[in-house]
Formats: sequence, structure tokens, C-alpha cells
Amino acid sequence: MKLATIQLDDRAVYGRVDGAELIIPEQSFLRQCPTLQDVLAARRVAELPAVGESQRVGLDAVQFLPPIPAPAKVICVGVNFMAHMREMGRPEPKFPLLFTRYPDTLVGHRQPLLRPQKSTDYDFEGELAFVMGRRAHHVSRTDALDYVAGYTCFMDGSLRDYQHHTTQLTPGKNFWRSGACGPWLVTTDEIPDPAVLNLETRLNGKVMQHAPIHDIKFDVPYLIEYISSFTPLSPGDIISTGTPSGVGFGRDPQLWMKPGDVIEVEVDGIGVLSNRVIAE
Amino acid sequence: MKLATIQLDDRAVYGRVDGAELIIPEQSFLRQCPTLQDVLAARRVAELPAVGESQRVGLDAVQFLPPIPAPAKVICVGVNFMAHMREMGRPEPKFPLLFTRYPDTLVGHRQPLLRPQKSTDYDFEGELAFVMGRRAHHVSRTDALDYVAGYTCFMDGSLRDYQHHTTQLTPGKNFWRSGACGPWLVTTDEIPDPAVLNLETRLNGKVMQHAPIHDIKFDVPYLIEYISSFTPLSPGDIISTGTPSGVGFGRDPQLWMKPGDVIEVEVDGIGVLSNRVIAE
Repeated sequence: MKLATIQLDDRAVYGRVDGAELIIPEQSFLRQCPTLQDVLAARRVAELPAVGESQRVGLDAVQFLPPIPAPAKVICVGVNFMAHMREMGRPEPKFPLLFTRYPDTLVGHRQPLLRPQKSTDYDFEGELAFVMGRRAHHVSRTDALDYVAGYTCFMDGSLRDYQHHTTQLTPGKNFWRSGACGPWLVTTDEIPDPAVLNLETRLNGKVMQHAPIHDIKFDVPYLIEYISSFTPLSPGDIISTGTPSGVGFGRDPQLWMKPGDVIEVEVDGIGVLSNRVIAE
Repeated sequence: MKLATIQLDDRAVYGRVDGAELIIPEQSFLRQCPTLQDVLAARRVAELPAVGESQRVGLDAVQFLPPIPAPAKVICVGVNFMAHMREMGRPEPKFPLLFTRYPDTLVGHRQPLLRPQKSTDYDFEGELAFVMGRRAHHVSRTDALDYVAGYTCFMDGSLRDYQHHTTQLTPGKNFWRSGACGPWLVTTDEIPDPAVLNLETRLNGKVMQHAPIHDIKFDVPYLIEYISSFTPLSPGDIISTGTPSGVGFGRDPQLWMKPGDVIEVEVDGIGVLSNRVIAE
């Protein structure tokens, strides 16, 4: 099942995707679960195909919001693809390199990304992200996939100058509306094993990154075990698994996104997350 | 004015501190502003001494919550005290080193801190934190202090082994209930200039850290200018300004907090944040 949140007039509404339409649940269901995060927390995702519908909205021209518009935690993994590590001459790390993004750094599919006032070193990082379906604290990797609600595409937009101000990635990874997530959440019944997927990032239609997900060193079960060993995860929390080689920072000459550019992240089995860049 | 949030039966209630009592506002005010964060956002702090009271609660034995129990952003500064930089032989940095803590890493005054299951390298860091009073995005340092609601004590509890797993501080700074904030927020009318304050950290009554706040390199106005250049700050957001020398990691032998220990952070003009450590 594909679950999306869209902007409809001034409201955020969610539903399940049926071809080119979004089927919005009936009002009584929406009152009990006003957001997709509430549906996950109430463990009622499986009911969605059976509940009545209040409305169908054509998806051709709507602006999407991130599938989970207000997650409590967005945690990202740096340098996780093996080919990228070898290319950079880095030793294999013993632990995943983690940083956080605030939810307000993320826009949904078709919403404009902002190239900041303060920096032009605006780089793309296409990624596969997963969304937690249950509270997870001290979960072992053996059980970990039971805690996942589904998968989505993620664009971990990075301002490279701010990223390198100190050892900490925080500023470069937290510019307002510099990243994207979506277009929807694909539930785990459609993707039992994310390792078989492939990821591709295109800038203005040209392929920039292309890699199999099985090349990541710290896989989804390991990430859940490690992260939940220190912080409790909740339904709707998002963890992005890292980007492969091909980012603008590593090119000669370096390549930055600028207003007017279109960046796309595609993961097979999920779809295409597409965003145009505008000036802040 | 000192503003606190406490646990009263199963509720979180806030009010202003009057000697040994908390004065809780009348019900009509609480309906309009259910949390202290709402009072800040509505810019109604100055009304509090004049509004009627619904209840007075003796503070001698209550458990406090963090003054802002659910801030959107908690941002911390690493290595900010000049004497600490010199002691560590580090060059003066050009930019503040920033990391984030999730709100669920923080407990209030008198609430137990958790020494984690997964790590015993549990270190203290006493700090001065400030709380934002207004939305701030692209604010210059000249205007910055107008955006501050007040100040509080902060214990940036750190798990040093997890902190050093990679270059990123994220895991070591985000263990569940490993840090503390409080006992209350002191509004800026009582502290027009935080640079004149002194900070002291005591472990089981013994002084571990003692330093003047004027020794920090990146002061409150600069931090607001820098941080608001990439991320919008909201009422209730907390920024902690960094710790002076004397942490357990830098001692010979190294000194870790263990169950039964009491850690206190005192800032003059604010008060004492005191917490006992228990095993998770």
C-alpha cells in the first residue's frame, strides 16, 4: 500500500494511493486518526483499504507534504555505501555515523526546495529512508524489521560550506526546507526486503547517483538495533540510510544545485521524489 | 520572574515561583495557554504576576519537569570556554560546534537521571542555557537578545564511549533521560546580561567545574545570529552554551557518574539544578 499526505486547500490530508488518485478515509476514521502518524501509532494501517472513503483527489497536480509531516525524530546515516567508502579511501567504519535533521528541513514531493540566502554550496544526496511503525527501544536486529512501517525516498540536501564549519554536520544538514521526503510511504508488505532495491538520483534528468541498496554496510536491522540502544523510536520516526557516490561535492569541478534545477530521487518499488529548487 | 513546570499528580502544570511556592494561573488563563511554551508564543509572560491564581503548590518536595517540557529544538554548543580550549591545546574555532539533543534526553530538577544499560562512561557537563521567546530566522546579533525569554541551568550528560564511535556526537548526547534542564526559567528582566554570571558543577557536593560565563567564545547574541542563519527558532527552543573544563573525561583517572550519585549545576541568579543518578 502507498500512503501519502497532501496539501488540500489549507489542510494536510492523508490517504492511500490508488493509481492516479488519493483515497481519503471517511470522516469518522479521520477524527480518530487525524494524521498518518496517528494511523501508525494506532496500528490501523491494515484497515485502510476497508474503511469508507470521504473523497478522491487526483494526484496529477497536487503538492505533496512529506508522508509524515511532523516526525519526532529524523535520523540520517553518513557514508554508508561500501563503494563510496572505497572511492573516498576511507576505512570501513565500526559504527554508523549518525546526524539529525529537524522536520522543518524537509519538503514533500513537488514542493520547492530552498537554495539558502547564506550559502550556494547546495548539494544533493539521494537516499532510501524507512519509517518506524512502533515504539522501539532496545530492539535486537533479529526483531527489528517488525518495527518498520515502510519505505520512502529521501533527498538529504546539504550545504557543504556550513557542513565543514566544524566536525559536526549539524548546520549544513539543517537548512530550512533544504531536503525532501516522499512522494509516499510504501508499506512493508510491498517491500519485504529493502536490500534488493536500487537507488538513482537525477539532476535535470541526468543520472548523478545509481547504486544497489545491498551495498550499504549498516543495514536496516542493524541501524534499528544501534539507534534504539540509546534513543527510543516512535511511530513516524524517519531514518535515512545514507547516500552512494556521485554527489556534487566529489565531482571535478564541484557541482551545486541552483534555482531552476530539478532534483529527482527514484527507488524502484517506491517511485520518484521530484523537487524544483528556488531561491530562499 | 522564575517560571517552572512541575509534575502534579499526573498532570504537568506551570506557574511562577514565589519563594517556596509555585503560583499556578487561573483556569481561564490555562485554557488559553496550556503550557509555558504557549505563554511564550502568545507573548503573555508579563501578564503572569497580574492574573488570578488557581492554586499554590509548595515546591519543597515536588518533582519538576524541564521548564519547557517539549521544545521543538534543543541545540548545544561544544567546546566554547576559552580556558577549556587552551587546556586541551585546541586552536580557537572560527564557528561554534553544534549538536542536537532530543527533548526526551532531558529530565527536570529532582527527576532521576538514567545511567544507561549500554554504557557506563557517563559524564557530566554543567552549562548555562537560554530559552527563545520569539520566532527567530535570520536575526542579527545586534537584535538577538530581544528574542530571548530567559535562562536556565543545563546538564549536558554525555556517554563518552558512544560519543566517540564516529566523528558525530549524536549517539553519546542522546541517551534517554541522560541530561537535565531547570529548575526553572529566569526571565531576562532579572538577567539583562548573562555574561556576568558564574557557573558551578558539583558531584556529590564536590566542585567539579567552576567558571565565569564571560569566558565563552561564542556568546548568546552570536549564537542566535549563527543558528538562526540556517534554522528558524521558535518560542521555547533551548540553546545550551557549552561546558567549561573539569569534566570527568579530562580527569586522571577518568571519573564517571554512577547510580546513587547526585549531580548539581548552579548558575548564580538562576539557582541549582539537582539530580540523582539511577540505573536504567
